[in-house]
Amino acid sequence: MKQVGIVGLGLIGGSFAKAIKKFDSSIKITAFDKDEKALESALIEHSIDDYDSENLKNCDLVLICLYPQATVDFIRNNAAKLKDDALLIDICGIKKGIVYYVEYILGSEHRNDVDYVSCHPMAGRECWGYENSLASIFKNKNFLITKTPNIKESAIEKAKEFATNCGFSNIQITTPEQHDKIIALTSQLAHIVSSAYIKSPTAQYASGFTGGSFADMTRVANLNENMWAELFLQNKEYIIEELDIFEKNLEQFRYAIKGNDSNMLKSILAKGRERREMLDQLDVEN
Amino acid sequence: MKQVGIVGLGLIGGSFAKAIKKFDSSIKITAFDKDEKALESALIEHSIDDYDSENLKNCDLVLICLYPQATVDFIRNNAAKLKDDALLIDICGIKKGIVYYVEYILGSEHRNDVDYVSCHPMAGRECWGYENSLASIFKNKNFLITKTPNIKESAIEKAKEFATNCGFSNIQITTPEQHDKIIALTSQLAHIVSSAYIKSPTAQYASGFTGGSFADMTRVANLNENMWAELFLQNKEYIIEELDIFEKNLEQFRYAIKGNDSNMLKSILAKGRERREMLDQLDVEN
Repeated sequence: MKQVGIVGLGLIGGSFAKAIKKFDSSIKITAFDKDEKALESALIEHSIDDYDSENLKNCDLVLICLYPQATVDFIRNNAAKLKDDALLIDICGIKKGIVYYVEYILGSEHRNDVDYVSCHPMAGRECWGYENSLASIFKNKNFLITKTPNIKESAIEKAKEFATNCGFSNIQITTPEQHDKIIALTSQLAHIVSSAYIKSPTAQYASGFTGGSFADMTRVANLNENMWAELFLQNKEYIIEELDIFEKNLEQFRYAIKGNDSNMLKSILAKGRERREMLDQLDVEN
Repeated sequence: MKQVGIVGLGLIGGSFAKAIKKFDSSIKITAFDKDEKALESALIEHSIDDYDSENLKNCDLVLICLYPQATVDFIRNNAAKLKDDALLIDICGIKKGIVYYVEYILGSEHRNDVDYVSCHPMAGRECWGYENSLASIFKNKNFLITKTPNIKESAIEKAKEFATNCGFSNIQITTPEQHDKIIALTSQLAHIVSSAYIKSPTAQYASGFTGGSFADMTRVANLNENMWAELFLQNKEYIIEELDIFEKNLEQFRYAIKGNDSNMLKSILAKGRERREMLDQLDVEN
């Protein structure tokens, strides 16, 4: 891998540029973004080498760090310009609505030579834009790779190697469907809950009255609404499913509290504790 | 303050013993607990000096680190044995149902000489018992002191000094009512949400599919169900109020997602982000 193209030089794209340079500073990086300020900053910081869009045709790896719809648009408009046998990776937070469509586009553009692997780096910050990017945000994080019948084993191996080089410590192979179902709970619903939680009028008086739990509960309310609105709508079925389950579990608490049912409360709290203990055990073994 | 009594040598009581000894190792600590193993461990570790229940009458400060009902019971059974003019502090997570009742008990036992101040250290861990206690859990944490018309200023000053000596950096004076209303959101609802969240069947497959948000959302599901069930029932009105507000805010998301309403979604997400930014600003200024 001598030349990498990074499309979208925001928090994630910028962090990948820095992580790649940290791994091997001889790899050339071309960035693609409409934000000239970010491109100029990245040039000055040597996170990238140029932003000459003509260089797309020379990139062995093209890493698309855009929102879902923009990812599809970029690939549709630029499929013909990709280098022969290039590795093409997107990092969208939803997969079902992206992966098969991109495969279809590549097929219809006669670009079956391109190794397309749809991935999801489970890393982020409560801020965005190139100016907040850091090589270290990927360190020891989870990296998800989605597999479809069209993807070659060799392409998956290349994506794995790329993730390891960027600092990820745990790589999971999944399907677009499984990815979207699990991520609806582990990421998207968490952002919805956090945003809903912090909107209580009481939260205005929370300062000085908090331990760790309120901070944890509301941390990710600080989000980029344009990206998350798009993710929620692209994964609506699984999110609504999880919201239904969550609200049913909340209702158990409501009835137990309203009914002064101490035994019921202890029993549902114990089930939550046992689940947390089970997951901690799985994470230790992982 | 030469002699302190700590009633209940669990996570919080044990941590107070260690924090007091760290501040001034010459302060004598008598512990009261039915768990002999904890008492013996604390003796060996020099966190306490004895567990002779006769010593209650010599304690300048009696710190009650029990659940709410047990706190009331202890004070009812031992009011007559307290030292003249002792400082009596409880650390229950709910206040309305405790503070006025304890004041009544002290009055009816003719112990108006006792300076009773009801406090709430906003600190904890996802584990419990003396064996998990640490002096450091109070460092730079919030400490709440509830004030009623019966409490003398001098008693509040003593409680403040005690909290500062134990490592707390931010002390808030509040009322039992305000405490319970705000804590319903900043602590109790967080534990309900966390416990409800982790019970999704999908959570069993979360390992390897998580970033920071799922861990944050479910951390406090690892709780002591006996204590939390009691807290929830003692603060049921405020908790149900917050649960109502929270579920209404969740419903906004449900309708916006089901209706494919991207603008609505962006708008409600932006409101959550702005609230988080406002609170961050308040915390910086605090």
